Amino acid sequence: MRVVSIIGVGMTRFGKWLERSLQDLGREAIWNAIEDAKVPAKDIQVAYVANGLAPQLTELKGTIGQHVLTSAGIFGIPVVNVENACSSGSTALRGAYLEVASGNCDVALALGVEKLFCGDTARSASAMAQGTTLAKFGFMFVALYSMQLRRWMERTGVTKEQFARVAVKNSYNGSLNPYAQFRRPLTMEEVLNSRLVAEPLTQFMCSTMGDGAAAAIVCAREIASRYTSKPSIDIAACELVSGTFTFPDEEHEPIARRAAKRAYQKAGIGPEDVNVAEVHDGMAPAELLLYEELGFCNEGEAGRMIDEGRTTINGPIPVNPSGGLAAKGHPVGATGLAQVAEIVWQLRGEAGSRQVSNKPRIGLTENAGGWAMDDNAACAVTILKK
Amino acid sequence: MRVVSIIGVGMTRFGKWLERSLQDLGREAIWNAIEDAKVPAKDIQVAYVANGLAPQLTELKGTIGQHVLTSAGIFGIPVVNVENACSSGSTALRGAYLEVASGNCDVALALGVEKLFCGDTARSASAMAQGTTLAKFGFMFVALYSMQLRRWMERTGVTKEQFARVAVKNSYNGSLNPYAQFRRPLTMEEVLNSRLVAEPLTQFMCSTMGDGAAAAIVCAREIASRYTSKPSIDIAACELVSGTFTFPDEEHEPIARRAAKRAYQKAGIGPEDVNVAEVHDGMAPAELLLYEELGFCNEGEAGRMIDEGRTTINGPIPVNPSGGLAAKGHPVGATGLAQVAEIVWQLRGEAGSRQVSNKPRIGLTENAGGWAMDDNAACAVTILKK
Repeated sequence: MRVVSIIGVGMTRFGKWLERSLQDLGREAIWNAIEDAKVPAKDIQVAYVANGLAPQLTELKGTIGQHVLTSAGIFGIPVVNVENACSSGSTALRGAYLEVASGNCDVALALGVEKLFCGDTARSASAMAQGTTLAKFGFMFVALYSMQLRRWMERTGVTKEQFARVAVKNSYNGSLNPYAQFRRPLTMEEVLNSRLVAEPLTQFMCSTMGDGAAAAIVCAREIASRYTSKPSIDIAACELVSGTFTFPDEEHEPIARRAAKRAYQKAGIGPEDVNVAEVHDGMAPAELLLYEELGFCNEGEAGRMIDEGRTTINGPIPVNPSGGLAAKGHPVGATGLAQVAEIVWQLRGEAGSRQVSNKPRIGLTENAGGWAMDDNAACAVTILKK
Repeated sequence: MRVVSIIGVGMTRFGKWLERSLQDLGREAIWNAIEDAKVPAKDIQVAYVANGLAPQLTELKGTIGQHVLTSAGIFGIPVVNVENACSSGSTALRGAYLEVASGNCDVALALGVEKLFCGDTARSASAMAQGTTLAKFGFMFVALYSMQLRRWMERTGVTKEQFARVAVKNSYNGSLNPYAQFRRPLTMEEVLNSRLVAEPLTQFMCSTMGDGAAAAIVCAREIASRYTSKPSIDIAACELVSGTFTFPDEEHEPIARRAAKRAYQKAGIGPEDVNVAEVHDGMAPAELLLYEELGFCNEGEAGRMIDEGRTTINGPIPVNPSGGLAAKGHPVGATGLAQVAEIVWQLRGEAGSRQVSNKPRIGLTENAGGWAMDDNAACAVTILKK
């Protein structure tokens, strides 16, 4: 298969945009990516569009991608609407990648777009409530997650303070990111004293609802220079798996570890080669768990990693320089592509005041979707190389 | 790219299955396809799953495909959930095709699964109601369609009786199909005198709600014989476009004509080479329009084509031998793959009492999705060769 490069990325600022439509958000991200890639819109031959909840929360019930693309002036091309819960955005990138890698087309667009705010928080929340058996007994996602978490804490000694440190680091990164939903750096005291959601999780450790869009334009590397003079960012791997979210020592191998193994193998690298990463910190503890699952440290060492500041933007392996899901925001379908946009900017050295200082050449995104204690999750790991 | 063969297909009977879940329906279709292909389930490396309305009408809000696959005993592989309104099923096939054609994997599954009946018809109907500007003025899909239709009748002389003849032909075909939702052959009088929906459309000219699932397993042709001794059915083209549903002489080229052009070119054939077709007769008149758009006859000749019986199962170019959407049923996400299953059975000579008599070697499916007078529709044309 051909080498595929990302030649343009773009996004909207994430936030609570009650007055903006899906079309409006998607259009902005698409045209930011088009302008970044310097690609004529007519050269885009196929589009993959990720969205999670529009049919439940907006007036659009289907062919969401076509509606957004038409409003952006792109008409007639094949459009594939994809969904994989919170990993929908990476699933869209994978589709665009495969189209170009296979030679089926030369230029492809991946878009993620989401509006979770609808003026009625209860309605938004219920749109996301999966009707599992456990849910019927009243177990909420966060409650289930925190039960698994407490077991992990007891077994490994990782602490609530270390979780809070993740939120502090990411809120600082988010404060430097003009696209972030939340731009106020938080202190340890603020994170630990914020409203308790489910022990040990406090409000500022958790991502919240967001509206927004993010896009990437990919093309065959051999023709990238027709469009852009910026450094070519190649997709070295874009691997998707399904399975169960687990904590270490549970029955199944953690889904992120499986996805990462496949991605490292495909890219021909190891975790030690990754210079910068955006990971799916739906709750702050997930970032620590992911240090281990992605191989950035050994099992049981994640707490020390955050304590030593190894994942700050000036550390040896910066994680979530964008602010991650909690600070940058988490508009479900857009998240994976916003991670990809951040890594592209970091590899190009275009990340402004949040630019990581280790001159990165290889970046990774990890984007997971699904419900806790559910065997039907998805996880995508993407590796980008300058 | 590699040649891709369909080595197995399977479906449930379409119908009103209030007591069956998405998982239950999907599992049956998957395992019917697996048994047909004689492929060990563990050899399936990726799945594309089409669904239109589960998040609105069932308890599953996301990662629908993972839920269905897990229940079928298939776990851990990449799953891509796709949506393209009524053309979702073909979109799933296209994804599976591209995975294998590109060499990304050897064996892929495409599944379409849908439950439209939820015990409350109003709720089902409203889940499908797109919030377009025209809809807000009270225009319903069928009303808009019938307005365009009457203009077409005036211009070309095609008649309501000819529309009824399509419904009569397809209800007869459906009566021979054990998978069909409706198995009673209708007379001209019954069709013409059934409840008026919107002049000239009567109830029996229109497809209705259905529950069901359909699946196809594809693999690289070079390894097909490892699994099955049945004749290899190759995917000669699987082309998807987006655009506007139009009637002839309107601004845009009809979407089905564009998709068909691309498919014929890719397959290196012309419409005269097609021996059997399944087309998207959401309303009976669409089948006539499609005779012209797919090139089975010249413009203005569709009425004569149905009058002369050229598209019956014993005619030179049988169309909708399965009964089509009105008789076989139309569970949105499953429809495209049920069309594909029918063509595979017809090409293999396995269609029982509805087997077409022209010894077909080339079959075509046309699967369209979207709303009338809307620029955001999708259409897929697939060409299969024995």
